[in-house]
Amino acid sequence: MRNLNENNITDEVVRRLVDTPSPRLKEIMTSLIRHLHAFAREVKLTEQEWLEGIKFLTRTGQACHGQRQEFILLSDTLGLSQLVVAQSHSRAQESTEQTVFGPFHVPNAPRLPSHGGDIGKNASGEPCFVDARVITSDGTALANAVVDVWQADAEGFYDVQDPAWRPDDTKLRAVFETDADGRFSFWTIMPKSYPIPTDGPVGEMMRATNRHPMRPAHIHFLINKPGYDALVTHIFVDGDEYLDSDAVFGVRSSCVGNYVRHEPGIAPDAKRMPVPFYVLDYTFRLEALAKLAMAS
Amino acid sequence: MRNLNENNITDEVVRRLVDTPSPRLKEIMTSLIRHLHAFAREVKLTEQEWLEGIKFLTRTGQACHGQRQEFILLSDTLGLSQLVVAQSHSRAQESTEQTVFGPFHVPNAPRLPSHGGDIGKNASGEPCFVDARVITSDGTALANAVVDVWQADAEGFYDVQDPAWRPDDTKLRAVFETDADGRFSFWTIMPKSYPIPTDGPVGEMMRATNRHPMRPAHIHFLINKPGYDALVTHIFVDGDEYLDSDAVFGVRSSCVGNYVRHEPGIAPDAKRMPVPFYVLDYTFRLEALAKLAMAS
Repeated sequence: MRNLNENNITDEVVRRLVDTPSPRLKEIMTSLIRHLHAFAREVKLTEQEWLEGIKFLTRTGQACHGQRQEFILLSDTLGLSQLVVAQSHSRAQESTEQTVFGPFHVPNAPRLPSHGGDIGKNASGEPCFVDARVITSDGTALANAVVDVWQADAEGFYDVQDPAWRPDDTKLRAVFETDADGRFSFWTIMPKSYPIPTDGPVGEMMRATNRHPMRPAHIHFLINKPGYDALVTHIFVDGDEYLDSDAVFGVRSSCVGNYVRHEPGIAPDAKRMPVPFYVLDYTFRLEALAKLAMAS
Repeated sequence: MRNLNENNITDEVVRRLVDTPSPRLKEIMTSLIRHLHAFAREVKLTEQEWLEGIKFLTRTGQACHGQRQEFILLSDTLGLSQLVVAQSHSRAQESTEQTVFGPFHVPNAPRLPSHGGDIGKNASGEPCFVDARVITSDGTALANAVVDVWQADAEGFYDVQDPAWRPDDTKLRAVFETDADGRFSFWTIMPKSYPIPTDGPVGEMMRATNRHPMRPAHIHFLINKPGYDALVTHIFVDGDEYLDSDAVFGVRSSCVGNYVRHEPGIAPDAKRMPVPFYVLDYTFRLEALAKLAMAS
């Protein structure tokens, strides 16, 4: 077919997908093309605006490298990531909610024992003791669950954002395994609210739309246990001023933790603290995959 | 606002655009976010599919370099480019139609005289004489119009696709200026149908959807004359087998040219041809900007 115009081109582009072997790919591409075209028609996108968009996407791809994923950041700031997370994990009321994965996870972080570790060594900030438990949604302790933890330092930077970062020199990240009682604990520093990286195309977009780039303070957790839906979540700091305007739309009420401030004294692990410290006591509730399968 | 789910997140993301200084940017971003979210909801995009999409876009950005624009190619193959071109140039029936710009134009190609040049030197293929005229939609000759011409060689490659290409070593491209009678002419080689580049992410997409990557044979023209809407078009070869399935949806009937084959003999410029040759006689009709302004 020739002589395609803005009114008949969409059907012809979709028709070209007729021989797509994967029905799912065909479904996704059909919907993508229809919405992409509908957008361009709705705003009557001009050639100059189209070219600006092409250049923006190109810069976004070129800003990505081993330790930076600018397209995930773009998806996060457009709310797409949280939408996909939300629709992918229907949750029983009593289970801990999922939130965005974010671009700063690193595989194979150092393993630390279930108790007694400190991921905040060499990082400035106020000490914080995390005392956590992993259970099923009906209250059974989950032993040997694998817990990835990562967070930013008190200046708002993850270790991988340091150009000098090396895979064998991680900071403020570790992997734990829960004990027989489903428990794990560690020392770290209090997380602080911080801006997403604004020195790339996503930063341009945030400035052009006058949006603040702040995320409320949080620690990331990824919890895996065979037979259970992997839990990707953050535990936010209650009272943070950005809880209702998170730049990436990731805050769930069930993920706001009570980080309690204590004066110098004895911590829950019997450590004597000469300075004020915080304690976060949190219970993660995982959803059994069998239960999810029955519900769907 | 917190506790955003797949149903209420879109309104919140759009609400964050409230302070965008440019009303046009706000309009575009609002529509983009609504359609992007509607797509993800409609297909119930999974986290794995989302990640595949992120990786695809990242590879697309990273495939771009000085002589390659993979995002334009993606836009072309999704029909977006032709849609934007079509809606940006309303045309009187008698004016030459626009088509996609494509990724292979190079600014500052060599200037050749209005007549007597040959852009096909050192390129294999059958000789072709282009005898063209630029006029207004009501028939007045347009002198001193600047005409950019570019095309692929008989193997289907533009000069810039050669890794050894240098800006001072162009092939099959030039800039002409029309004479007092609106005319320009040059020798070249007959264009052939060719595949778009398939060694990158767009090639992956074409293979995954079982689409052929062919474009019908054509020569590109970009014609600029102050006071007239710049004309970006191709002149396709009548009878090409891909005219109705162009991989980038660019064929307009008014842009299909009659490339007439001649036996060895005297060409229209009086040159004696020892081999068969083609002649394209084509008249480009430009639209006055004043006329466009009145119509809208």
